[in-house]
Amino acid sequence: VELTAADIARLTGGAYEGNPGATVTGVAGIREAEPGEVSFVANAKYLPACSTTRASVVIIGRDIKPLPASRPDWTAPTWVLVDQPVLAFTSVVQHLGPPRVTVQPGVHPTVVLAADARLGRDVTIQPHAVIEAGVELGDRVVIGAGCYIGHGSRIGADTTIYPRVTIREHTRIGDRVIIHSGAVLGADGFGFELMGDGHRKIPQVGYVEIGDDVEIGANTTIDRGRFGRTRIGRGTKIDNQVQIAHNCIIGEHNIICAHTGIAGSVITGHHVTFAGQAGSVGHITVGDKAIIMAKAGITKDVPAGVIMLGAPAVPHKQFKKSFVALQALPDLVNDLRLLEQRVAELEQQLKAD
Amino acid sequence: VELTAADIARLTGGAYEGNPGATVTGVAGIREAEPGEVSFVANAKYLPACSTTRASVVIIGRDIKPLPASRPDWTAPTWVLVDQPVLAFTSVVQHLGPPRVTVQPGVHPTVVLAADARLGRDVTIQPHAVIEAGVELGDRVVIGAGCYIGHGSRIGADTTIYPRVTIREHTRIGDRVIIHSGAVLGADGFGFELMGDGHRKIPQVGYVEIGDDVEIGANTTIDRGRFGRTRIGRGTKIDNQVQIAHNCIIGEHNIICAHTGIAGSVITGHHVTFAGQAGSVGHITVGDKAIIMAKAGITKDVPAGVIMLGAPAVPHKQFKKSFVALQALPDLVNDLRLLEQRVAELEQQLKAD
Amino acid sequence: VELTAADIARLTGGAYEGNPGATVTGVAGIREAEPGEVSFVANAKYLPACSTTRASVVIIGRDIKPLPASRPDWTAPTWVLVDQPVLAFTSVVQHLGPPRVTVQPGVHPTVVLAADARLGRDVTIQPHAVIEAGVELGDRVVIGAGCYIGHGSRIGADTTIYPRVTIREHTRIGDRVIIHSGAVLGADGFGFELMGDGHRKIPQVGYVEIGDDVEIGANTTIDRGRFGRTRIGRGTKIDNQVQIAHNCIIGEHNIICAHTGIAGSVITGHHVTFAGQAGSVGHITVGDKAIIMAKAGITKDVPAGVIMLGAPAVPHKQFKKSFVALQALPDLVNDLRLLEQRVAELEQQLKAD
Repeated sequence: VELTAADIARLTGGAYEGNPGATVTGVAGIREAEPGEVSFVANAKYLPACSTTRASVVIIGRDIKPLPASRPDWTAPTWVLVDQPVLAFTSVVQHLGPPRVTVQPGVHPTVVLAADARLGRDVTIQPHAVIEAGVELGDRVVIGAGCYIGHGSRIGADTTIYPRVTIREHTRIGDRVIIHSGAVLGADGFGFELMGDGHRKIPQVGYVEIGDDVEIGANTTIDRGRFGRTRIGRGTKIDNQVQIAHNCIIGEHNIICAHTGIAGSVITGHHVTFAGQAGSVGHITVGDKAIIMAKAGITKDVPAGVIMLGAPAVPHKQFKKSFVALQALPDLVNDLRLLEQRVAELEQQLKAD
Repeated sequence: VELTAADIARLTGGAYEGNPGATVTGVAGIREAEPGEVSFVANAKYLPACSTTRASVVIIGRDIKPLPASRPDWTAPTWVLVDQPVLAFTSVVQHLGPPRVTVQPGVHPTVVLAADARLGRDVTIQPHAVIEAGVELGDRVVIGAGCYIGHGSRIGADTTIYPRVTIREHTRIGDRVIIHSGAVLGADGFGFELMGDGHRKIPQVGYVEIGDDVEIGANTTIDRGRFGRTRIGRGTKIDNQVQIAHNCIIGEHNIICAHTGIAGSVITGHHVTFAGQAGSVGHITVGDKAIIMAKAGITKDVPAGVIMLGAPAVPHKQFKKSFVALQALPDLVNDLRLLEQRVAELEQQLKAD
Repeated sequence: VELTAADIARLTGGAYEGNPGATVTGVAGIREAEPGEVSFVANAKYLPACSTTRASVVIIGRDIKPLPASRPDWTAPTWVLVDQPVLAFTSVVQHLGPPRVTVQPGVHPTVVLAADARLGRDVTIQPHAVIEAGVELGDRVVIGAGCYIGHGSRIGADTTIYPRVTIREHTRIGDRVIIHSGAVLGADGFGFELMGDGHRKIPQVGYVEIGDDVEIGANTTIDRGRFGRTRIGRGTKIDNQVQIAHNCIIGEHNIICAHTGIAGSVITGHHVTFAGQAGSVGHITVGDKAIIMAKAGITKDVPAGVIMLGAPAVPHKQFKKSFVALQALPDLVNDLRLLEQRVAELEQQLKAD
């Protein structure tokens, strides 16, 4: 699909400034756009990027004009001035972006479906999926190609599971959940006890429970409970490559970013955030709305609302003070050595007196 | 399944205290249990959690009575007093937990099985698995749904491979090994050399060797050797999302926790521990029983028995001293500035004299 | 296959020193080799390892003789002296290593192949793969067992995708790309906005674009753009378990090591390196040839050529100075306390005068 700047102005109710015939076939952010693409600026802080963008057309808020000066060797895009640039860009994306994929309900003939599995209305099961005995799938559930749904697992209505996900036995998944490819729910927790020289496996006989409206990222792993449940609370969103260990009870509406690792039996409140590559030791409690910053490693209970940083983590104000002081430390050492000299001179002087 | 407190007392040879008709349908930890669940306390340090638990029934050691005072708005669970609470709870778990899944030996008709693959007795191969030419599977091996077992790989007796595991060609796996879903064994090591502007791939023609009694977590990756082997020693347990690079020689009975990354050609002794999100540079040696703490990054050989912390890692006593001093550093700066003033005053005074 | 030291000398044009009948069946590095294996030494810095190696045969450069003294209880290997030890060893590896696996072009009957998919010449599609509508595969493409290739994705000539990879819809992959098992390309980016109590999903309607000659490691995840593309530049090599978030524009010939996590909309130049477990916040730019060291976390734009270390990351010289000072900090505290005493004494003395 191709659009001209004039098309875009018409689509968005905007006014173009520049070449109405400027043609685009794709969309991109203002910094990474290339010739033949349309971008947008909804916020004055991106104005500097406007002067260097390679986009052919830029949708921009009327209020964030005037346009910036550009470098001499730079060809300005055609501007399309609109009242609501985000909305306008979104409608353009729908014209130029790749078409959304829709699935047809039904069970592909290559699916291995247990005789006693119970399927709701309009369920889709894509090729080569395996649905074990006792599974229940709610209305409009989509199971992607190559997924494995273990014995006795229950999946709520309107849940979508993308290709190549593993759901081990007895997992309970709520409504409107999204699980991305490669995720593994219900693998054994990591529990051993040292017996003589070797590590003896502690049986992991619990299960995983996922609340409504949860999203789980690609290649994320959530282990089954040693006994009882590992639970992800309603509305919590989990990014890619996250590890959540056995018997964690993650609260509602948490945000857990990529590569975060949470050890066993951690309990979190609601609206807790773990930024990227954060970590937690096991058996601690994290209060409501606490924020564990990127790469932080928490080692004890975190009160509600506190922002933690560093490894081991401390409250972020403390971290920042220490961090600033640390950067100045080499100079501080010099200052101390100078002061020692001055004191030595004073001592010498007094002795001489 | 449902059990009353009276049932549990009878099952465990214990005595109830409270309502014998209190009914439970599930098990959970003392902190996360909900009404209708039974929990346990085997250690006096969990007594505080007893006063707030929402469990309907709690199995507790006779010796760790007396019971704690509770808040006024709190309904005490029914207690079941026993001599060995862990044992008692374990037997209750077997009644209330989800039933264990058992597999029937045999090769599912959807399996793609090479004509020359050699299968031991009572082997199970689940749907849609692919077994390439020259593969040997020992007695009672279980290959999960959708697994890929590459050319010439050998898998020892009583090994279980959960669904959707990739075992690339020529991998050698011992007896009684457990490999969780999504793990990838034998992908190419990450080896390149810069030629002009680009990176040229160094062929990775070795293999992966897994000792007896090893466990490998979900979505963990272990790369094949550049030449020769990447080896995981007997009895070592590896958690989820771990990365072990080409030509590592991991010793026996190591514990390697989630998100640990070990670069190429590292050699570890026996009973080494890597805690969560730990890391190692390549080409170093880690001595027996060394412990690499969570998020630590080791950068040189680690002697036996040493505990390492920090990034770059140092022995943990040194880390702790520095860490404590760092937290006090902002105050130290103040102290130094004050002292500088005092010295300046002394200097002034002496000059005046 | 078995070779004697005499065979190896003949194969490599070298001269043996020791037992010509010493027999080997495998290859290994000098430190991890076992009896019955052949190793090599191409660099004098490995000479110490020569005195303890358990290899039966060692290929060694003529110029890096004389051989080191060995411990009394140690049996020297048979040495094979050659001019070019790496080349010599490589030829031995080809004799003793596991045979390379070759694939036969063709589409396995278990493949689910959309009627309108377009296949180049000599394409291989292994068992249980799923190829959705509108897919285009270039000449000599290999799609591994159990892979999922989503709607409208295009894969260039000579690209190899190992088993159990997920390529979501509308992904564009260049020529000569290698993608290892378990990788997921094109899962939704992690984008939400808080609406009242809950997080509302921001549609992720873009795609992933992979340049020519890229390699992508096992279980790595690259999310599709929110709109427009997430791009990996030509020649970039990505290790296992890496996470690249939506709308990143990764430059050419980057090296991105295991467990690195790059948040959304990061732009990198060419020849940038991320070492293991490195991380980046979103929306920053990393200049050409910058190096982000292991476990570093960058939080703002990085100029070209700079080496960054620490979390939050600082230029590596600054990090090293602070790190050294930090290790000395406990002593510094003592020095300051001593100096305070001396100053107090001086003050006392002057007062007394």
